[in-house]
Amino acid sequence: MTRPRAVVVVTGSELVRGDRTDLNGPYLAAELLRLGIEPARIVIVGDREDELADALGEGLRADLCVVSGGLGPTHDDRTVELVARAAGVGLRLDEPLHDQIGGISRRFAQRLGRPYVDFEAGVRKQATIPEGALSLGLAGTAPGLVLEAPRAVVVVLPGPPAELRRLWAEALRVEPVRRVLDRARPPELRLLRFFGASESAVAKALADAGGDGNGVEATICARDFEIHVDLVVEPGAEARADDLSARLAAPLEQYLFGRDGRPVEELVLGLCRERGLTLATAESCTGGLVAQRLTSVPGASDVFLGGVVAYSDDLKMRQLDVPAELLERHGAVSAEAAAAMAAGARARLTADVAVSVTGIAGPGGGSEEKPVGLVYLQAEGPAGVRSADFVFPGDRDSIRRRAAVTALHLLRLHLAQNRHEGV
Amino acid sequence: MTRPRAVVVVTGSELVRGDRTDLNGPYLAAELLRLGIEPARIVIVGDREDELADALGEGLRADLCVVSGGLGPTHDDRTVELVARAAGVGLRLDEPLHDQIGGISRRFAQRLGRPYVDFEAGVRKQATIPEGALSLGLAGTAPGLVLEAPRAVVVVLPGPPAELRRLWAEALRVEPVRRVLDRARPPELRLLRFFGASESAVAKALADAGGDGNGVEATICARDFEIHVDLVVEPGAEARADDLSARLAAPLEQYLFGRDGRPVEELVLGLCRERGLTLATAESCTGGLVAQRLTSVPGASDVFLGGVVAYSDDLKMRQLDVPAELLERHGAVSAEAAAAMAAGARARLTADVAVSVTGIAGPGGGSEEKPVGLVYLQAEGPAGVRSADFVFPGDRDSIRRRAAVTALHLLRLHLAQNRHEGV
Repeated sequence: MTRPRAVVVVTGSELVRGDRTDLNGPYLAAELLRLGIEPARIVIVGDREDELADALGEGLRADLCVVSGGLGPTHDDRTVELVARAAGVGLRLDEPLHDQIGGISRRFAQRLGRPYVDFEAGVRKQATIPEGALSLGLAGTAPGLVLEAPRAVVVVLPGPPAELRRLWAEALRVEPVRRVLDRARPPELRLLRFFGASESAVAKALADAGGDGNGVEATICARDFEIHVDLVVEPGAEARADDLSARLAAPLEQYLFGRDGRPVEELVLGLCRERGLTLATAESCTGGLVAQRLTSVPGASDVFLGGVVAYSDDLKMRQLDVPAELLERHGAVSAEAAAAMAAGARARLTADVAVSVTGIAGPGGGSEEKPVGLVYLQAEGPAGVRSADFVFPGDRDSIRRRAAVTALHLLRLHLAQNRHEGV
Repeated sequence: MTRPRAVVVVTGSELVRGDRTDLNGPYLAAELLRLGIEPARIVIVGDREDELADALGEGLRADLCVVSGGLGPTHDDRTVELVARAAGVGLRLDEPLHDQIGGISRRFAQRLGRPYVDFEAGVRKQATIPEGALSLGLAGTAPGLVLEAPRAVVVVLPGPPAELRRLWAEALRVEPVRRVLDRARPPELRLLRFFGASESAVAKALADAGGDGNGVEATICARDFEIHVDLVVEPGAEARADDLSARLAAPLEQYLFGRDGRPVEELVLGLCRERGLTLATAESCTGGLVAQRLTSVPGASDVFLGGVVAYSDDLKMRQLDVPAELLERHGAVSAEAAAAMAAGARARLTADVAVSVTGIAGPGGGSEEKPVGLVYLQAEGPAGVRSADFVFPGDRDSIRRRAAVTALHLLRLHLAQNRHEGV
């Protein structure tokens, strides 16, 4: 029995022109895979009528076609019209939708102090949907839609990623989509997350463990300087997957940090929470990236107190009590400065645990002795300190992101170590 | 005269499964556009033979087909074989390539201490190319290739982005590709960047200005809460483009902040630099995002001193001198707190200019009086203050990113206003 086959069609001239990288295709592909539907292809087209029509034509030969974008009020947003044409059905003005979109646009016009008549054509356009289509609700003034075409079920979603995700969840509850899902076979996913091991070391460990195949498919993927291994396990291959993941993990145990999708910042906050510790950051070259990642987790405020971005030497002294003599002797990019910054953050921000990062993100500021990419880090808590230094490759953005993820893993190791030692 | 039409085919099972976001498609699309070739679509497929064959079949109906990935030594890397089949030509072992790849593999085998015979099949596979194909040189052990198919010129490139970019530069020098480039017409690009106007307001202004067409193609794109208008100007349509951009900008002048691709953080740093002002940040709900964006710009350190992420009330008091009574009376999410945070950052971090952000990013923490999304901001400098408040829609990530971009634009307006007033 084969899985239902899905095609994702993403439209947006800025995407096909390289101005922006599409995020909806990868999101939808991962969703389809999780649900047991085969994501066969992602097609990205602009708003040219012939290209979009062609891509929809191909998409409608799959079992499920998910379309993103092109739902706006203007004439170059042609998705709905072309989906109807590809499915061989007409268009109709949906009165309840017309009322609803009209109401939103009226309030919007009022707020802008503009006449509603400016919006009228757009409202009619957005309330006009294919015959037989079901509305999933609105994203702004654009309805998401589900349509049963002769072969495929078509799901039409708005382009903005947050709105797409919200209406995709709605689509999964709608009858025609449910019928496709009933034929799907969700695989089991096993995740292994490594930090500190290279992609080729993980690939070698996988090969040594027997490799994939026989109902277990493995992907090894370097993502944000971590190595993520996903095992897609077909029904019946669970024992083989257990064996493979045990064999893969054994030689890499010191690098294995997770068996689910939780990001390291969430693990760090969880470890602090478990142990009743508060947390602060002291950043130089990462300029707020570490704090930003920690505060991206909802509910971070019960653990994370705050941080100091001490970009200038003066602020390192005044906000983090780094001694002037230390900066003079060792420089702001040094193990000594990282240590003083972490200690200063703990004391000044009255946190139990702190992490510091100082380095040279480039492109300027490097020297023979201290090259671009050199980064010193320190994590410090009631149980002691853990420090590290690296010369990271890559450009400014890459060095900063790598330093930030390393700071988070340093915190994780510091906290996990203390826990094991019963401190 | 229409432009040559190009299709980009990207292959990789990790891409079609959403494990990784493809970067080659957007890179190649931007390159094609710059060169005056129309990037008609980007198709992402896995390594399933039928899907890839199908995508290549479509690609070979364009004038130029650029293929990325699937060049490895193993059996599931099928790009070369399927390109030959789609073009209707056979495969042949290329002796010089065989020697070259063999030499690399021999040295590699030696280094790993493995017998060369393990590599032999892979070497033969990678040295086997379509009849009539030209080699672009090697990426690792995989040759990039150019092939003239009956209709399309096909460029076959390796998947790793750095290698792809290197061999793409080679491809542009090869005769069959040069012939396609001779028919290309590089367009002129004009950019208009707005903040504070809605996408539909910009769309209406464009329509009122006469709309696009007649050699000027416009895309309106909401990106990171700004509205970006790109005008692609055909040779000969420059006067029409001048007129259209003037008419488009006139009613939106207060929202227009740029006519090039520089991000707002770079404009803010430039305005500070021009006027010899130093800058600091005081962030609560954005948790370091504003500082992170400012420090993403190389050379930020001559202007940006640092910032405080004051996530807890305690740190707002102790690091930014926000009075306890003020927090008690008005709450941490209030115009009064934002004002005190900005003033505190200027004083404590001894910066000329500071911006503050305090708000409720959610999903928890909202109330009827102060809902999730409520954000107060203040920019303050020698010339005075500029404040703002909003209730932003969306999820935590969206509210935080929107608050950060708003803080940067508030700074820009504060600085630009002072400049115009000759302060």
